[in-house]
Amino acid sequence: MGLIVQKYGGTSVADPEKIKRVAQRVIRTKKEGNDIVVVVSAPGNMTDDLIDLARQITDSPPPREMDMLLATGEQRSIALLAMAICDQGYNAISFTGPQAGIITDDIHRKARIKSVQSERIKRELSEGRIVIVAGFQGATVDNAITTLSRGGSDTSAVALAAELRADVCEIYTDVEGVYTADPRIVPDARRIDSISYDEMLEMASLGARVLHSRAVEYAKKFKVPLHVRSTFSENPGTLVTEEVKSMEGVVVRSVPHDLDQAKISIFGVPDRPGIAYRIFHAIGIAEINVDMIVQSVGKDAKANISFTVSRTDLRDALRILQQVGEEIGAVEVIADENVAKVSVVGTGMKSHCGVAAQMFEALAEENINIQMISTSEIKISCVIEEKDTEQAVRAIHSKFQLSE
Amino acid sequence: MGLIVQKYGGTSVADPEKIKRVAQRVIRTKKEGNDIVVVVSAPGNMTDDLIDLARQITDSPPPREMDMLLATGEQRSIALLAMAICDQGYNAISFTGPQAGIITDDIHRKARIKSVQSERIKRELSEGRIVIVAGFQGATVDNAITTLSRGGSDTSAVALAAELRADVCEIYTDVEGVYTADPRIVPDARRIDSISYDEMLEMASLGARVLHSRAVEYAKKFKVPLHVRSTFSENPGTLVTEEVKSMEGVVVRSVPHDLDQAKISIFGVPDRPGIAYRIFHAIGIAEINVDMIVQSVGKDAKANISFTVSRTDLRDALRILQQVGEEIGAVEVIADENVAKVSVVGTGMKSHCGVAAQMFEALAEENINIQMISTSEIKISCVIEEKDTEQAVRAIHSKFQLSE
Repeated sequence: MGLIVQKYGGTSVADPEKIKRVAQRVIRTKKEGNDIVVVVSAPGNMTDDLIDLARQITDSPPPREMDMLLATGEQRSIALLAMAICDQGYNAISFTGPQAGIITDDIHRKARIKSVQSERIKRELSEGRIVIVAGFQGATVDNAITTLSRGGSDTSAVALAAELRADVCEIYTDVEGVYTADPRIVPDARRIDSISYDEMLEMASLGARVLHSRAVEYAKKFKVPLHVRSTFSENPGTLVTEEVKSMEGVVVRSVPHDLDQAKISIFGVPDRPGIAYRIFHAIGIAEINVDMIVQSVGKDAKANISFTVSRTDLRDALRILQQVGEEIGAVEVIADENVAKVSVVGTGMKSHCGVAAQMFEALAEENINIQMISTSEIKISCVIEEKDTEQAVRAIHSKFQLSE
Repeated sequence: MGLIVQKYGGTSVADPEKIKRVAQRVIRTKKEGNDIVVVVSAPGNMTDDLIDLARQITDSPPPREMDMLLATGEQRSIALLAMAICDQGYNAISFTGPQAGIITDDIHRKARIKSVQSERIKRELSEGRIVIVAGFQGATVDNAITTLSRGGSDTSAVALAAELRADVCEIYTDVEGVYTADPRIVPDARRIDSISYDEMLEMASLGARVLHSRAVEYAKKFKVPLHVRSTFSENPGTLVTEEVKSMEGVVVRSVPHDLDQAKISIFGVPDRPGIAYRIFHAIGIAEINVDMIVQSVGKDAKANISFTVSRTDLRDALRILQQVGEEIGAVEVIADENVAKVSVVGTGMKSHCGVAAQMFEALAEENINIQMISTSEIKISCVIEEKDTEQAVRAIHSKFQLSE
């Protein structure tokens, strides 16, 4: 009796059999009396395959053309899913991102949604159709096809849910929900029933792969309830909503970790105003996201600055840093790919002391060295050596008794 | 020093190496000082593969969704070709059919181009860019993606050439041009240097696969010179233009044949006005193209009607005919897939007698039975048993001394 937006990831639409199963799930929701908009990703590994194909042509494909190529992946999924639903006697119609009215800025391959013009979708819904929309893509005002960052289909779904004032945005994936830690590393990790936007936001940016952080931001901003569920089971999953009283009791909600981390350190930087600006301005205009930043002042009025980036951005970041380093008279620029980030997240931290100390204690007991520390109101992150990751996650999970 | 539209078929862009070769050919044309618009098909067998994929989902995919799926093939080609050209330091930009302003009617899978809104392409050309356009596709005024009939990329190229007033539309393919007969059947078949639109039009609809007939119609209407050439050689190819004096001397230009023929016969139809209308109206609204039609009056005021359709349309046509046949009280409806069409084409026929007699003589000498005959000013076609096709083509080619 409502409007539901469902999003299915690439593994859920990897082959015709899986697509038929998704169609059944969609139809069931429709039969329950709901209007429904379905957002789908490209099938399985298709995006990676297309990137490989482009590499066979050129090392530096123009981003606009890369988007033109990648957008075909989701377009394939929407057509096949619409066919599968129609085959069951239900009325479905598919739209590419541009056709669905998803307008983005013009930063190809990392575009951000600016607005959604949903007149067409509303018209189709009012005529009883199931609407299928290609995730991960949109168009600039100049009608060029753009793609969002990786995982951007979540964002497409939430943006549509917000614009259409959907009752819930269901994110279907190949896991059962959000866990207190990666169950592959911590066998007794627990599924979390409900979690606040803020906690989920931290977790998404801390390496929990289940939701794209931009999608959670968007959901928080427009108060769209998110429901993370498994495509392949009927289990309850995890609800992501506004913070409620009962959430405060939990000090630490989860222990996410992130292996997609690389550290760059610049040693012997002159310790004067404007230096950090020059470094991070150069990184920023190259569209590289910086995660943690640590600056320490050494002797001789020289500072050392370390920061982390995604491993895919390391080569570009290093090239830029070596040039900037020379210009500002830095002594040395060093990169380290063998690092990982381990974090604890929980709204309850706001009102509880000593969480950091407990986390550091857990690491110390395992004799794990901390390279960088970063904190916010509801999270603490440590960069450690990559090889220590699993041990660290287990130790912290156990220290905070998260399996109980 | 002009504006050239080039069209490359699926075999020319089948893999990254071939795409790079096409890029070089395009760049050479650009270097010679021309503005250039390139139209490409889907790579290799991709269209067939996508059709197979859809079949794994459903036996009757909605045509709109099929177009959504198929359009990804050309979109892949344009992105990769633009990348390959940019990789060589030239400025290229790709457009899907809808983005290129190709507006069609809303008959999905067999759409016809209604207009081309070329402002964007003109702007890009004036800025020195090489423009790459996806063939075979367009959009309805309601912005649904459509595809033209199979081979429709030729039509896309000619429509763009007409709209842009290009100096020539070059059709690159895997053969060296247009031949007096299929060289695989007639080893001494000759390449034709130049041929009139009318002759080419007949040949295209008579089974010569090298050009799509709708494309030739369009070229004739807008007087776009067509140049059929090989992607893989520098040979001169075949020029398709308006009829010139010298063409009249040749009585028979070519002997095309067509294996994609199926014959349906309705026996014992009441011989009264309106019956043919009822039959072909029913076939027409199902969007099935009828080729040859023969009606003969039998005894008892009953007529027999035979006609041919493409083999892919046979099942649908037969289903319709069985129903109509019952309604109008026909005695029997019979289908025969084992037929082929052999033809002779030539502008010179207009002013020469006895061409039909010579053709029938060639068939008679080989003891080949003629099932249906159809003529126009510049062609004669016979439907024969499929197994006799090669023998028939060789005999007719030799009778008119076309290898000399």
